[in-house]
Amino acid sequence: MLNAAGLHAPYCLRTVVELETEDGKIGLAEVPGSAAIDEALLAAKPHVLGADPRNWNALRAKLTQHFRPETSAVRGMAPWDGRKLVQVHSALDVACLDLAGQAAGVPVATLLGGIVRDQVPYSAYLFYKHEGAGGELAFGVDPKASGWAAARQKAALDPDGIVAQAKAMVAEFGFQSIKLKGGVFAPLQEIAAIKSLWRAFGAKVPLRLDPNALWSVQTSLTAAAELEGVLEYLEDPCRTQEAMAAVRRGCRLPLATNMCTTSFDDLPGSIRHHSEDIILTDHHYWGGLHASMELAAICRTFGRGVSMHSNNHAGISLAAMTHLGAAMPNLSFALDTHYPWQSDEIIVGGRMKIEGGCVTVPKEPGLGVTLDRPALARAHAAYVRCGLKERNDEIEMQKKVPGWRFLASRW
Amino acid sequence: MLNAAGLHAPYCLRTVVELETEDGKIGLAEVPGSAAIDEALLAAKPHVLGADPRNWNALRAKLTQHFRPETSAVRGMAPWDGRKLVQVHSALDVACLDLAGQAAGVPVATLLGGIVRDQVPYSAYLFYKHEGAGGELAFGVDPKASGWAAARQKAALDPDGIVAQAKAMVAEFGFQSIKLKGGVFAPLQEIAAIKSLWRAFGAKVPLRLDPNALWSVQTSLTAAAELEGVLEYLEDPCRTQEAMAAVRRGCRLPLATNMCTTSFDDLPGSIRHHSEDIILTDHHYWGGLHASMELAAICRTFGRGVSMHSNNHAGISLAAMTHLGAAMPNLSFALDTHYPWQSDEIIVGGRMKIEGGCVTVPKEPGLGVTLDRPALARAHAAYVRCGLKERNDEIEMQKKVPGWRFLASRW
Repeated sequence: MLNAAGLHAPYCLRTVVELETEDGKIGLAEVPGSAAIDEALLAAKPHVLGADPRNWNALRAKLTQHFRPETSAVRGMAPWDGRKLVQVHSALDVACLDLAGQAAGVPVATLLGGIVRDQVPYSAYLFYKHEGAGGELAFGVDPKASGWAAARQKAALDPDGIVAQAKAMVAEFGFQSIKLKGGVFAPLQEIAAIKSLWRAFGAKVPLRLDPNALWSVQTSLTAAAELEGVLEYLEDPCRTQEAMAAVRRGCRLPLATNMCTTSFDDLPGSIRHHSEDIILTDHHYWGGLHASMELAAICRTFGRGVSMHSNNHAGISLAAMTHLGAAMPNLSFALDTHYPWQSDEIIVGGRMKIEGGCVTVPKEPGLGVTLDRPALARAHAAYVRCGLKERNDEIEMQKKVPGWRFLASRW
Repeated sequence: MLNAAGLHAPYCLRTVVELETEDGKIGLAEVPGSAAIDEALLAAKPHVLGADPRNWNALRAKLTQHFRPETSAVRGMAPWDGRKLVQVHSALDVACLDLAGQAAGVPVATLLGGIVRDQVPYSAYLFYKHEGAGGELAFGVDPKASGWAAARQKAALDPDGIVAQAKAMVAEFGFQSIKLKGGVFAPLQEIAAIKSLWRAFGAKVPLRLDPNALWSVQTSLTAAAELEGVLEYLEDPCRTQEAMAAVRRGCRLPLATNMCTTSFDDLPGSIRHHSEDIILTDHHYWGGLHASMELAAICRTFGRGVSMHSNNHAGISLAAMTHLGAAMPNLSFALDTHYPWQSDEIIVGGRMKIEGGCVTVPKEPGLGVTLDRPALARAHAAYVRCGLKERNDEIEMQKKVPGWRFLASRW
């Protein structure tokens, strides 16, 4: 899958966290995987041992103290987020909530203030891509695949390919809105793809485009003028709050962000500049589910919309995202998810269902998912075999396009 | 007790809310009492019956819908808050949390994200007053009273009276910080009282003054210059965010507010103008404990301090305030409470203890307080006898000073 940073490797790395209580209950969480985050989680261990999982505020305070020197790490030069503290917070918040929900006999969404919707809507997430599948097939093709599993192996490098991908994905999952990951081809080509989607799906299916901040202000303004009335929102056309604010002042398209405003520290600037209309939370990068609920309250207070960003993830995170989506009173848009792009699963029962574009909130206490240990062992073996220790889309891209380099601004 | 709006009546009206579940558990809450709030709570009843008390987000959404036309009610012309929606939210949020805590077997503070302090600090709350006690004694004196109960009957109309009141209150409750309710006498007199407190207690006891927005910008600036290095913060010297911002720009004293920024709708203006350094929450007026936690997150995000405002209240509210104070990570200051000024109580066990200036967080599930029904019946009989249906400090003041009128700005 192509993106502004290069090419997703055929594997997505995830670190799975298990917290076990004295009475044998297990709390789960999943965060973007890397050797660095594994190290950080081990460093957090002394604070976690003996802590009450229902008392997140106290554990958060301890962790913040412990990781304080790292909070100054910057963010924004890649579509993912390498800051460790927020991911450690996220992992432990989710796992603690899973345990607290099990202890209280209620779903995690209830502990976030209560369920306002039982069906949480997600959007179709389209990618430009070469032919081929992921996982052990690397970029090979599985000829036995059918339906969406076959469709997603196909190349999608032009408007027709994108429309075909969208139709297959919508047919399988029933999504009611569509997002295209841009920042891959020149803006004119991506605008053409969006207009093809518009013609294929009509005005009832909201569309979004995310060039991952690769456009200049002038390009963003020209593109926005072209896409007014077509897009539901334009995500991160360019880099920095100042640039986003300049684009926003010059167009009538709502702007969303996951790259220019990505932390609580960024929010005062976002409000001051009014750089965006919609903030995309991601509990992995905002410090957990409690923190994402705080972000939602801030968005409500300051008249900003809220939706959700996604990277590749498995079912533990899909469950966490769904509990969050169920509890956020002001969820203005369908959430992003990469879930249709994976085929493996590490939770009991296998792949979670997306029907009518929605995931039903698990009703079991806690997150409502348990680990499939043989499946986890298989995934771990694949991790060891593949040899990746961190995400690096630039190196993957160079395998396809020798000499390709990431640029912070391309068009 | 004298204040900018006149004189507190010898009774404080409180409405007690009980929510009963099918399995016989009772959730409690307490809000400022009036015939109007009783009516509003009855109007909310159809939404509450059958609702899941653990699912506050859903109930809040229904109530907001129901009371929507009233959300435009203004606030700021009195030191208390007559908006009904936030008080209905507050009452039901607290009572639901009490039930949810009982159901989960955890204190309310745990459901607010977890306990960060077991001892919640309060400040001594001083009032100018004539001689006399409250309650059935009206403004009479109980000659049998001793200790603080005797001291609080004494007149406090000058610096010496205020210092004597402070010493008696601190001796009884161990408060570590002191607030004087001002807006009663000309600023020079109130500044003199603060300076007397400073001399009597020294720099280790933080002091605050609250003129309830009765000062002009120029008076506020002059007073602030006098009190720099003496006050911990100056609360609401004047009215409106613009005026507060003008004062803030012209002085080095932190400004706090409970009158210029009193709702989520006011926050964007407060941040834009930077009108205050510290926002005083009050779960009765900000829509409950969940909402107050959201306010705390906003204060943390935008670099504002947070503390708590108080009106007269009984033990149910003191318990709720203490759970909130226990869970707020960024509680920068001791909380206000009127509690030492009342002698009656409606909860089992009688008066809650304030020791070393702190209330210990109740460890029982829920709020940790239960109704003393005979005591509640006595309080209700007193309510019927006294004939008051709403708080009106102006009428009370006119009994002492014929012709006295409230002024929005006095000095």
